[in-house]
Amino acid sequence: MIKVGIVGATGYAGVELIRLLVGHPHVAIQRLTSRAEAGVRVDHLFPSLQGHIDLVFEDPGAVDFADCDLVFFATPHAVSMSTVPALLGRGVKIIDLSADFRLVDIGVWESSYATTHAAPELVSTAVYGLPEVNRAVMRDANLIACPGCYPTAVQLGFLPLLEAGVVDTGRLIASCASGTSGAGRNAEVNLLLAESTETMKSYGVQGHRHLPEMEQGLSRAAGGGVSLTFVPHLVPMTRGIHATLFAMLTKSSVNVRDLFESRFADEPFVRFTGGHYEPETRHVRGTNICEIDVTHPPGDMVVITVAIDNLVKGASGQAVQAMNLMQGWDETAGLMAPAVNP
Amino acid sequence: MIKVGIVGATGYAGVELIRLLVGHPHVAIQRLTSRAEAGVRVDHLFPSLQGHIDLVFEDPGAVDFADCDLVFFATPHAVSMSTVPALLGRGVKIIDLSADFRLVDIGVWESSYATTHAAPELVSTAVYGLPEVNRAVMRDANLIACPGCYPTAVQLGFLPLLEAGVVDTGRLIASCASGTSGAGRNAEVNLLLAESTETMKSYGVQGHRHLPEMEQGLSRAAGGGVSLTFVPHLVPMTRGIHATLFAMLTKSSVNVRDLFESRFADEPFVRFTGGHYEPETRHVRGTNICEIDVTHPPGDMVVITVAIDNLVKGASGQAVQAMNLMQGWDETAGLMAPAVNP
Amino acid sequence: MIKVGIVGATGYAGVELIRLLVGHPHVAIQRLTSRAEAGVRVDHLFPSLQGHIDLVFEDPGAVDFADCDLVFFATPHAVSMSTVPALLGRGVKIIDLSADFRLVDIGVWESSYATTHAAPELVSTAVYGLPEVNRAVMRDANLIACPGCYPTAVQLGFLPLLEAGVVDTGRLIASCASGTSGAGRNAEVNLLLAESTETMKSYGVQGHRHLPEMEQGLSRAAGGGVSLTFVPHLVPMTRGIHATLFAMLTKSSVNVRDLFESRFADEPFVRFTGGHYEPETRHVRGTNICEIDVTHPPGDMVVITVAIDNLVKGASGQAVQAMNLMQGWDETAGLMAPAVNP
Amino acid sequence: MIKVGIVGATGYAGVELIRLLVGHPHVAIQRLTSRAEAGVRVDHLFPSLQGHIDLVFEDPGAVDFADCDLVFFATPHAVSMSTVPALLGRGVKIIDLSADFRLVDIGVWESSYATTHAAPELVSTAVYGLPEVNRAVMRDANLIACPGCYPTAVQLGFLPLLEAGVVDTGRLIASCASGTSGAGRNAEVNLLLAESTETMKSYGVQGHRHLPEMEQGLSRAAGGGVSLTFVPHLVPMTRGIHATLFAMLTKSSVNVRDLFESRFADEPFVRFTGGHYEPETRHVRGTNICEIDVTHPPGDMVVITVAIDNLVKGASGQAVQAMNLMQGWDETAGLMAPAVNP
Repeated sequence: MIKVGIVGATGYAGVELIRLLVGHPHVAIQRLTSRAEAGVRVDHLFPSLQGHIDLVFEDPGAVDFADCDLVFFATPHAVSMSTVPALLGRGVKIIDLSADFRLVDIGVWESSYATTHAAPELVSTAVYGLPEVNRAVMRDANLIACPGCYPTAVQLGFLPLLEAGVVDTGRLIASCASGTSGAGRNAEVNLLLAESTETMKSYGVQGHRHLPEMEQGLSRAAGGGVSLTFVPHLVPMTRGIHATLFAMLTKSSVNVRDLFESRFADEPFVRFTGGHYEPETRHVRGTNICEIDVTHPPGDMVVITVAIDNLVKGASGQAVQAMNLMQGWDETAGLMAPAVNP
Repeated sequence: MIKVGIVGATGYAGVELIRLLVGHPHVAIQRLTSRAEAGVRVDHLFPSLQGHIDLVFEDPGAVDFADCDLVFFATPHAVSMSTVPALLGRGVKIIDLSADFRLVDIGVWESSYATTHAAPELVSTAVYGLPEVNRAVMRDANLIACPGCYPTAVQLGFLPLLEAGVVDTGRLIASCASGTSGAGRNAEVNLLLAESTETMKSYGVQGHRHLPEMEQGLSRAAGGGVSLTFVPHLVPMTRGIHATLFAMLTKSSVNVRDLFESRFADEPFVRFTGGHYEPETRHVRGTNICEIDVTHPPGDMVVITVAIDNLVKGASGQAVQAMNLMQGWDETAGLMAPAVNP
Repeated sequence: MIKVGIVGATGYAGVELIRLLVGHPHVAIQRLTSRAEAGVRVDHLFPSLQGHIDLVFEDPGAVDFADCDLVFFATPHAVSMSTVPALLGRGVKIIDLSADFRLVDIGVWESSYATTHAAPELVSTAVYGLPEVNRAVMRDANLIACPGCYPTAVQLGFLPLLEAGVVDTGRLIASCASGTSGAGRNAEVNLLLAESTETMKSYGVQGHRHLPEMEQGLSRAAGGGVSLTFVPHLVPMTRGIHATLFAMLTKSSVNVRDLFESRFADEPFVRFTGGHYEPETRHVRGTNICEIDVTHPPGDMVVITVAIDNLVKGASGQAVQAMNLMQGWDETAGLMAPAVNP
Repeated sequence: MIKVGIVGATGYAGVELIRLLVGHPHVAIQRLTSRAEAGVRVDHLFPSLQGHIDLVFEDPGAVDFADCDLVFFATPHAVSMSTVPALLGRGVKIIDLSADFRLVDIGVWESSYATTHAAPELVSTAVYGLPEVNRAVMRDANLIACPGCYPTAVQLGFLPLLEAGVVDTGRLIASCASGTSGAGRNAEVNLLLAESTETMKSYGVQGHRHLPEMEQGLSRAAGGGVSLTFVPHLVPMTRGIHATLFAMLTKSSVNVRDLFESRFADEPFVRFTGGHYEPETRHVRGTNICEIDVTHPPGDMVVITVAIDNLVKGASGQAVQAMNLMQGWDETAGLMAPAVNP
């Protein structure tokens, strides 16, 4: 058993981490911080956790995590970068769910987030925590930057094609949709049920903060520059990201289904549906599974469909998977409960 | 490890039983029957179960459950009564989620369901499976009749007041609401998303099949006849039953909160909220918890609010709880995962 | 054509008033005020109104409504009472959708809203705008206080029984549910889609601000004091109030269906379903209709079910109906479009 | 006033036609047929229409529409083609919402629908009813084939670019999503609320029946062959189609916003948002509006977003617009009510 803390424990990623960790066989939650809810019992704010945790949220300024082996940051961007260096210095391992250490190019990060990076020297030591790509280096990491939710879905979907070098990397397209929990546990009028149910819209077509992270990952897979057109949408559901990806084949004899089948054969959390059924967000709700299918209709365009739970494989579940790797545990520990359907 | 079978495994209660049982420490699912889906892989029909079960649905007529220690019936009414006698005769334990063995009065059952009962001799040996009332006898039972979803919520809510004899038993009122999964996995126009989302209505005000079961249970608790007005509603959500109960106090000095507190203090699956928050169906979604609160506004009327998941505490979870008792296991085995919120 | 203004035009009642008034044959919208959105085009904030209105929200402090014949207040409580006296003094008619002039007893109002009333002298001149009760006096009114949403549903449902004097007025019960738009266009975490979809809960069981208004109206109908137990719930839909009312008959030979049939025979906006179908909120969505049914199951309890759109018959539609009466127009003008179903 | 009939009046397109026509200034509904509901009062099956229509559904086999000037077919494919010839022969005008007369190439139609066409001689006389393209010929038509819902959204979105000849017509992509009413008022398990809420999936990626219709229309606009990759999705809402379209510019100096602005300047039912807000299905719910925006992120890919109501501009509203043109009335008659939001 190790002792862990969570910074930013009242956001959706934070509380989802708590849910996953209370059922984890090797972890005890030691400290949870929240600026807004310091002093409040966790199970009064989140009654679904009653009986599972007996802690009170603490003020982040008053906690030094000296008694923790590992700390998760489930904070907005530009928070963890100020605190992580000291914690790492004291031997605490860090899993950061925020964007602070995801981008290798600090200049791109700084322009994307309009902020000066507070710990640029750490960026190169951080490991990008997509296990399907970086499993080996994640095992040895002290600082893991978990991928964003859209980037997880988009990268996993394009990986087999890019690694095989069979598509035009200059014309990648991702039409994605997210449930409203992706926008966080924030009181905003446009996220009210009365405003966001029974409707669908796109947003950020002109440019989205997740785009550089996607292009970075896709370029690594392709072994060279890529160009991606990314359109996110808001759909009336709580959880889930659905991605529909388009790529043009540059080779005519490729069996794309075989490519996906073999690429993900050993991945514990990628479920290639192989045409048996369409990836669907409810199949993976509350789970760390990424469901993927690939279709090759007549012509040279390939269509990949991907479904993940934005709060699990897109955030907290992937963070637990990262911890399992860092600690040398079974990679699936604490992550195997099936989705609740219907 | 015991071996279990499920008859009617493709209905919502059936597939929820599968979900709960694949995570149960002492159970192996041996056989699943379905008239409509015989021959189909379980995980092709229910992809959320992929990786958790490797069975194919079998035709109920072709299965004798000779290799099962215990069989669950998740069938419509008037099915189990024909098969249960033979299974019991061969020493197989039975947990019946249907209505066939719930009512002690066979005449009432036959008029409620407009059918002749096929196994009236077994009715008196069946144990009504509400653990909060019948825990001791359930441990020794071979045939358990699980309560219906509405009856579970209504009985648990009224129990403390009726057992204490402090309310007018001739004027009980239950205004309840169910998500649409309560109507089953049946292709009916009125259950389509397009027909049942963004709306609310009552149904069956003139009389509902669950009413005799409720009155039977409430009368046992009250030690005498009761009269209940029961109005069910359909609300636009998948899972959950919410019950709002009204009873008139006949004694003025009763502290109803204390009554509830003490009545449920040792119940592993009743969460008395004590006014800290309102019972809410999402708090218990996917779990076997029954959340209850009681309020005594000015006047002599007491209001009890109850939230359960109709498919768990209202069906399959309660069935697993019954099995745990029958088998002498920890009553909470396989039933402790927290709800997925939001 | 008269010229009208709306104070508080960006709340849900305000924008619904705009929608109804742009299609009204005798009205031109002259001015819309909003503290928060002053200077913004109406159709940029509410694109569904594009092509229907060409105004900009104005700051309420900068508008004197000198060019308006009638002003609607769609404001929170304790706003209109400060402005109404001056407007009335200048001959402007007022329809107030807020609570400021609903309660005859100023003491009860002041304790309910924890505020000193700014215009107590006007309270007795205000007409309570429930047309089914006060149609005649509404025609002559200069100041109409529109009923709240829950009070509209509860009063209309109980009216026939109370006026006929056939039920126990000391034991009235109302179990009601509202869509989330009833809580207003306010950025609150508990109203987020991610928090309020797929769940149901009660709130305010201990006491709700609308209770005195209901008891006032029910007492008028009963010709004497009544006692009401009122429990509101939040259900996962945008619009709609569903009320399930319980009353005990004190006379055994009453045909309740006839009572309702005749009481509402001439009401243009009450649709008595007479058992043909259950009142359902989607049937009345976007309309000024109040759907009602009454059922008398075995025993002496009568159950009334009511469905209205909280923003129309429960707010802005009722306000337009009030205006039609005040102005001597056809009472249904601008209010006859059928609901959009599904 | 003309007299009209509707064949297939109990499907979603049929009942939506009734809703629109009861408010139309120049139309009286004379006959409504339904195989399944013959003999049932319209307002008992659809209570939202009570007070607006006083008809009973009739058996289609027993009705000859001799007293109708115009008949709408809101039937599944392969129905209207058998009846239309006789009606046309008697001088009845026809507006067909089904697919029977949409495709010029009978061979493609027959292979898409796996049926022999019953009236191939009429196909060339039918006018494809997309007013934004065919307004002039629609005015003189006796038989109009209304476009499908997806084809309406996709064609309107691509039109300005194709007509201007500024994009690569061999690489068009449409990622579209529909509410569940698009699948019709059919009792199917996968359309139940419990199965289709809180989830998103694609379907028919390998090929969809609407694809030939889209390619036919896009080719006409482009003046030559086009290739379209079309992926439809199901999203958890009742109404609405959202289309996100991708096209590659072949000319670098094009101002796409100007192209759209001018192409749709005079269209009464196309609302070009011009970047002021994102097209959103609720903005157009229940209306005949098509909301469109176009974005040109860095690079040569253009993104068009489109929102329509699948039952109005995607079906029955477009049919009314077609009737208005055929009859020489104001094109917007009966179609101007704003959407009900929220």
